[in-house]
Amino acid sequence: MTTPDATRAEALDDTLSPLSLKRVGIDTYRENVAYLHRECDLYRAEGFQALSKVEIRANGQRILASLNVVDDAAIVDCQQLGLSEDAFEALGLAEGHPVSVSQAEPPASIPALHRKLAGERLSREDFRHIIRDIAELRYSKIELSAFVIGCDRGELDREEVFYLSDAMSRVGRRLDWHEHPVVDKHCIGGIPGNRTSMLVVPIVAAHGLLCPKTSSRAITSPSGTADTMEVLANVDLPFDVLGDIVRTHRGCLAWGGTSELSPADDVLISVERPLSLDSPGQMVASILSKKVAAGSTHLLLDIPVGPHAKVRSMPEARQLRRLFEFVAGCMGLTLDVVITDGSQPVGRGIGPVLEARDAMRVLTHHAEAPMDLRLKALRLAGRMLEFDPDVRGGAGFGMARDILDDGRAAEKMRAIIEAQGAKPFDPENPPLAPHRFEVLATADGVVTGIDNIKLARIARLAGAPKAAGAGVELFRCIGDPVTTGQPLYRVHAAYRNELTFAHQSTERESGIAIGHADEIIRLNVEF
Amino acid sequence: MTTPDATRAEALDDTLSPLSLKRVGIDTYRENVAYLHRECDLYRAEGFQALSKVEIRANGQRILASLNVVDDAAIVDCQQLGLSEDAFEALGLAEGHPVSVSQAEPPASIPALHRKLAGERLSREDFRHIIRDIAELRYSKIELSAFVIGCDRGELDREEVFYLSDAMSRVGRRLDWHEHPVVDKHCIGGIPGNRTSMLVVPIVAAHGLLCPKTSSRAITSPSGTADTMEVLANVDLPFDVLGDIVRTHRGCLAWGGTSELSPADDVLISVERPLSLDSPGQMVASILSKKVAAGSTHLLLDIPVGPHAKVRSMPEARQLRRLFEFVAGCMGLTLDVVITDGSQPVGRGIGPVLEARDAMRVLTHHAEAPMDLRLKALRLAGRMLEFDPDVRGGAGFGMARDILDDGRAAEKMRAIIEAQGAKPFDPENPPLAPHRFEVLATADGVVTGIDNIKLARIARLAGAPKAAGAGVELFRCIGDPVTTGQPLYRVHAAYRNELTFAHQSTERESGIAIGHADEIIRLNVEF
Repeated sequence: MTTPDATRAEALDDTLSPLSLKRVGIDTYRENVAYLHRECDLYRAEGFQALSKVEIRANGQRILASLNVVDDAAIVDCQQLGLSEDAFEALGLAEGHPVSVSQAEPPASIPALHRKLAGERLSREDFRHIIRDIAELRYSKIELSAFVIGCDRGELDREEVFYLSDAMSRVGRRLDWHEHPVVDKHCIGGIPGNRTSMLVVPIVAAHGLLCPKTSSRAITSPSGTADTMEVLANVDLPFDVLGDIVRTHRGCLAWGGTSELSPADDVLISVERPLSLDSPGQMVASILSKKVAAGSTHLLLDIPVGPHAKVRSMPEARQLRRLFEFVAGCMGLTLDVVITDGSQPVGRGIGPVLEARDAMRVLTHHAEAPMDLRLKALRLAGRMLEFDPDVRGGAGFGMARDILDDGRAAEKMRAIIEAQGAKPFDPENPPLAPHRFEVLATADGVVTGIDNIKLARIARLAGAPKAAGAGVELFRCIGDPVTTGQPLYRVHAAYRNELTFAHQSTERESGIAIGHADEIIRLNVEF
Repeated sequence: MTTPDATRAEALDDTLSPLSLKRVGIDTYRENVAYLHRECDLYRAEGFQALSKVEIRANGQRILASLNVVDDAAIVDCQQLGLSEDAFEALGLAEGHPVSVSQAEPPASIPALHRKLAGERLSREDFRHIIRDIAELRYSKIELSAFVIGCDRGELDREEVFYLSDAMSRVGRRLDWHEHPVVDKHCIGGIPGNRTSMLVVPIVAAHGLLCPKTSSRAITSPSGTADTMEVLANVDLPFDVLGDIVRTHRGCLAWGGTSELSPADDVLISVERPLSLDSPGQMVASILSKKVAAGSTHLLLDIPVGPHAKVRSMPEARQLRRLFEFVAGCMGLTLDVVITDGSQPVGRGIGPVLEARDAMRVLTHHAEAPMDLRLKALRLAGRMLEFDPDVRGGAGFGMARDILDDGRAAEKMRAIIEAQGAKPFDPENPPLAPHRFEVLATADGVVTGIDNIKLARIARLAGAPKAAGAGVELFRCIGDPVTTGQPLYRVHAAYRNELTFAHQSTERESGIAIGHADEIIRLNVEF
């Protein structure tokens, strides 16, 4: 069929000289990037183009990466193949190891991606293939963006959201607690403060329900439950240690170690966040896939509604609840959704240390314990207790209150803190950041609205959560009367420049509206 | 309003120490990337995240870039801010120049992008803002992908396609030839060989019409007109030199220097290509924005149709024609669209040298001149001649044939080649790549189909266009009888490994179907 030339050429196939692997100390954030020198023979022969996808093979291992072309031999020379930090870990070989590189066939699931972009409905298999490729970092940022956009704005029907959630829960690690029920709670977020988990977990665990709560660190907020708990105890625990703590104490408050449970979620977030996309389908898949992977059988979901919350109206909240309920049902997860008042922060503090103080004050019945946080935590804990088949419907709240008020919750919290590794913390004298200023009322009247987003931004500018003692200390809630010059909130910052950023932001807008009582928007929430 | 602390802090605003600019020798292909060391004070204080957008300011200059976090001081140290090659050029300052870096506000047009993602129709202003930001590399790859996907699959109505094309033609350089008409031709591509411009331009220029043809280099094909012309002459000419040549000889065959005319197109292609997206709206905007920016007043557009062409059916072709006609009309461009037979390659050769030989053979009436190339070129040239108000409708073809047959076209071509800077080329002994093999017929019958995509891929694997002498030499056309063992085509490669790639590909599938004459699909094309 061919001339001798070609036959000879065939034999030469494997004689392409391999390159030497080098770790390039660049964090490309969940994208595999390969670095080839422009003068490298292989680059010239293969006619790669910048950004084209290459396949790197060694020891039967193979990874895909996007190509960056290098003109500086200090980064990679003509005999080297450089890999970004994530990619180097993924390949898992030592520097200097010989690797071969070739134009990559696109990931096997790309045709399915194109069908979704063409507006088609995808099958369960399609989603499994796409999510596997994504979890294995086979998608470039461009392909990831295409998938996220293709799934955005209700272009997934509810079955597809289930397929996506199910696929995400099946890649990566899956925990099994070998008992039933395993209860968890989750808030879709967007409300500063709101550290109810720090109270709900000890209450529910004190009652005896298994509650292995794993929380996330802040991504765009001033603090996540993991950041706040970290003020009191170590939260970064290996799964086996975590397992022992949970079995002994019935609960924990640890960091989820996101990249192990539902790793695809982590990768998707890396493009959803820069695009500030958070479509219902993506939210449901992200939350439920992690909970199922973490071994939960029962979930209480908190959807706060408010003018400055993720969900702005009751109809929107009910629609989101129905989607959560449908997908949870398909995944065999018992779900109880509560729609709560998200019109203002919950508790006094915004930022890890301030929030930890709020939680400890509620647990210890301190005179300045924020009552809104106490009440919301009791309601949520009550609903969770009713996951216990032996608890009568409606009896949960009273039981939760008893557990909190007779000190069993505080005792359980102390035990969990000890078990995870306690850190010194004195609620009477918390390690607040040194630089501070107060924002004062500029008029007489009542507080008619609080902009959650604005206050969260101020707390972040002030250094939270990186600086645990930084954040915002709120002195007024919606409905409180104020007179000109009275402090509305205090900002704590660890560094001068951060104080400045926060201050400039408050100068532009304080985030607290003062007016007449009848301007207050009352949300008709069910909870 | 604030405590002395804050007032003091305000004064400190501008005291953040600047970083020293460094050029990082990495080609990130039309994306600005900034490199900050993980231990750098600024990185720690600002709480940047990998991939977050940063703004770099110096001398009143400012650019936006995506952040990569660096752990290797050899790339950037804690006092440096590194920029990828494109970004460094864009900022246009010397290494060591002090720069300040901050969290970037997203590009001003991002809200418009989000409205498009939400399915809204965008205004002319919206498109201008988006395209300006894109041309200035303010968009990250992720945001670019979002825009391209948002504009894909007919989510642009025809007015929006006009707004997009118009906006693209207004950023970057715009040529004005100070005469009328200025004629050009363009083929939407996808047909290997098909180097009609090499014949049409000399014919039209010999007649006296101004035809400043700028062509692209191959992006995904085995050769672009610029690559083929480069075998005969220099094609990379400064605009002023080009201008002189065109004014003297009435035509040229040069490289478009894409990044100057319609620079946004270049950036968009950097994500469209990896996603292999080529929606009608994007195709129309890409082609018409460049032609208008190049100063053309009249355009002949060739839309080939065939089972392995970009456009697969006549209805699809007619729909695309209507969109081109509408947008061209809005842009004040006189457009004549011809739908041609794209069922097989045009000419014998695929690859720069082979295609140059085909063109020169037609110009010189060589015995082996490919007649299909001659005929198509004459038809296209004829239609273009009719852009001349003094040419009677229908008279163009005959005039074109005369110009070609009496040698005026060959003479004009020689003049253009001389003017651009001739390269030694002997059509009788062209510099073909040394390694070769032939693919033979495996059955008796007639050629019933030729897979353009497959043959283009084989030519590319063989090294075209990087290796000008590489490619595919076709011995049979659709309808030709063949007997087992007869050569169908010959592959030329510059390197052994490339010969191997190409050979393995032909082993999987030759790309030429052999069967019975009545299996041939006849396209009812109008041209």
